[in-house]
Amino acid sequence: MPVGGAALDLVGVPMPEESFTAAKNSDAILLGAIGGYKWDKNEKHLRPEMALFYLRRDLKVFANLRPATVLPQLADASTLKKEVAEGVDMMIVRELTGGIYFGEPRGISINENGEEVGISTEIYAAHEIDRIARVAFETARKRRGKLCSVDKANVLDASVLWRKRVTALASEYPDVELSHMYVDNAAMQLIRDPKQFDTIVTNNIFGDILSDEASMITGSIGMLPSASLSESGPGLFEPIHGSAPDIAGQDKANPLATILSAAMLLKYGLGEEKAAKRIEDAVMDALSRGFRTGDIYSPGNKLVGCKEMGEEVLKSV
Amino acid sequence: MPVGGAALDLVGVPMPEESFTAAKNSDAILLGAIGGYKWDKNEKHLRPEMALFYLRRDLKVFANLRPATVLPQLADASTLKKEVAEGVDMMIVRELTGGIYFGEPRGISINENGEEVGISTEIYAAHEIDRIARVAFETARKRRGKLCSVDKANVLDASVLWRKRVTALASEYPDVELSHMYVDNAAMQLIRDPKQFDTIVTNNIFGDILSDEASMITGSIGMLPSASLSESGPGLFEPIHGSAPDIAGQDKANPLATILSAAMLLKYGLGEEKAAKRIEDAVMDALSRGFRTGDIYSPGNKLVGCKEMGEEVLKSV
Ligand SMILES: CC(C)[C@H](C(=O)O)[C@@H](O)C(=O)O
Ligand SMILES: CC(C)[C@H](C(=O)O)[C@@H](O)C(=O)O
Repeated sequence: MPVGGAALDLVGVPMPEESFTAAKNSDAILLGAIGGYKWDKNEKHLRPEMALFYLRRDLKVFANLRPATVLPQLADASTLKKEVAEGVDMMIVRELTGGIYFGEPRGISINENGEEVGISTEIYAAHEIDRIARVAFETARKRRGKLCSVDKANVLDASVLWRKRVTALASEYPDVELSHMYVDNAAMQLIRDPKQFDTIVTNNIFGDILSDEASMITGSIGMLPSASLSESGPGLFEPIHGSAPDIAGQDKANPLATILSAAMLLKYGLGEEKAAKRIEDAVMDALSRGFRTGDIYSPGNKLVGCKEMGEEVLKSV
Repeated sequence: MPVGGAALDLVGVPMPEESFTAAKNSDAILLGAIGGYKWDKNEKHLRPEMALFYLRRDLKVFANLRPATVLPQLADASTLKKEVAEGVDMMIVRELTGGIYFGEPRGISINENGEEVGISTEIYAAHEIDRIARVAFETARKRRGKLCSVDKANVLDASVLWRKRVTALASEYPDVELSHMYVDNAAMQLIRDPKQFDTIVTNNIFGDILSDEASMITGSIGMLPSASLSESGPGLFEPIHGSAPDIAGQDKANPLATILSAAMLLKYGLGEEKAAKRIEDAVMDALSRGFRTGDIYSPGNKLVGCKEMGEEVLKSV
């Protein structure tokens, strides 16, 4: 179903009613990257990104799981030194339907001096913090048992409540080791020693920033999938990267993040762990056989386009 | 004058009246890092960091200049590959007295469901954006003439206004090349290719996060000074790093960020460019002679403590 730029071209809105209904009635949703230069000057409500908002908000997919893993085959692709990047394997759990992305009041108004004022509101209710914290504790439990909650509790009252609720839940997960870190420090520690992190939980805007940072330290943002989960309805699965309009139509894009998003869809969306593993193994195999798109290319490997990379993964299944 | 933890111990408040009056009546202020484990559990209004808030707010030092420079002597200290880190030389201009740090409403309250809700408000008036943008344009003009404004205008209305005002001012600075970048992308680009940046201007919270990230890519956060300037009163000069309570009293801390803050004080606070240059040259000379504190040590150099590093700088003056 069309959403974003494609929908704007077809029917003039970023999120057509029919597309939403189809998504809502599905078992799981695989989303392609949206946006592009063509719509960059559109007014806010007619921008491709609005499709993402409506989907996230109306499907209530509050839990965004963003893995950042350095694959052994790609340890050289990072701009970090090999010994720093090698072995990085973390999961960022980002709150996706609350905070400053959706808080009211918001907008641009005129103040008593006749001056324009822009307002956005960071707001979290206790139950919103609790439910994302639970997802994070459960996630950490299935990984290496370490959860780092990132906030700015020395400045933001919304973060004070965040830290209080996360701390209170910790007693229900005695097998998980909880720590807290300020967001500015987290932005540093991700570069200084990314291996210290197992699972990170944070709010919508900090998660936006830190997950992009973390994906870049892996050196392979074209490789990273994501899952957005709700309490009951269908999940939303998409690559972390954007639509890369600068290379559109040139058969250069790395298809692996989208392919790995399909694997996450199978695992988290449909509970088909074995099928998910088959896709992941096929991707690893294609990489081990030396195939690389331009973004992850290094000398000694075989440079291929988007289509050929897809075919090599298929051969590996 | 005591502020922060020292003031809490002496008189029970983080920002004593006398200290503020003395600061306000000075030509410039050199601030030591504040905080420590001892006061970590204090209630918010009795935390050392509050001194920073009051000082910044009441001295109206809205323009925070944070250089991130990779010194040739220290190109190896970064966790980034040498070819990525070498030559990095940027200035982050962070808005320091507005935005979500100070916006109202703020606090934790009970909503209509009897549930706790935490609120912080990101708010910028046109004149606040204009004055920090002007400082940034002027700064870029004296550097390599490139200014990148970082916001989240695809999501936050406060950023929409930010982008509009910065864009409108650009015509007054035809010699400066202005670009815009979303904050999540900026967090990535700082790692992918930090050399692309000359001057960055951004809001209070994004500046907090990105400047810490940028300082860490230089690999020498113990080296970086900062200046906070107001429209007319005294400026505030301090190292970017915190108080490092884990190594307090061990004669291990790197004194260079504080020494270089004194240089910034001379340059930006008192207009004494020559005296500032003398201090900067002395620091470079001590580094060139191979002296290193633990945080920037690499084999082949001479490991020294805080005191000895200071003495070596003195010898170089
Ligand atoms: C496109 C944008 C609105 C979106 C966000 O900020 O959430 C994107 O950056 C992401 O992280 O999925
Ligand atoms: C200590 C803290 C309140 C402060 C801030 O967030 O501004 C610090 O991180 C800084 O960047 O100077």
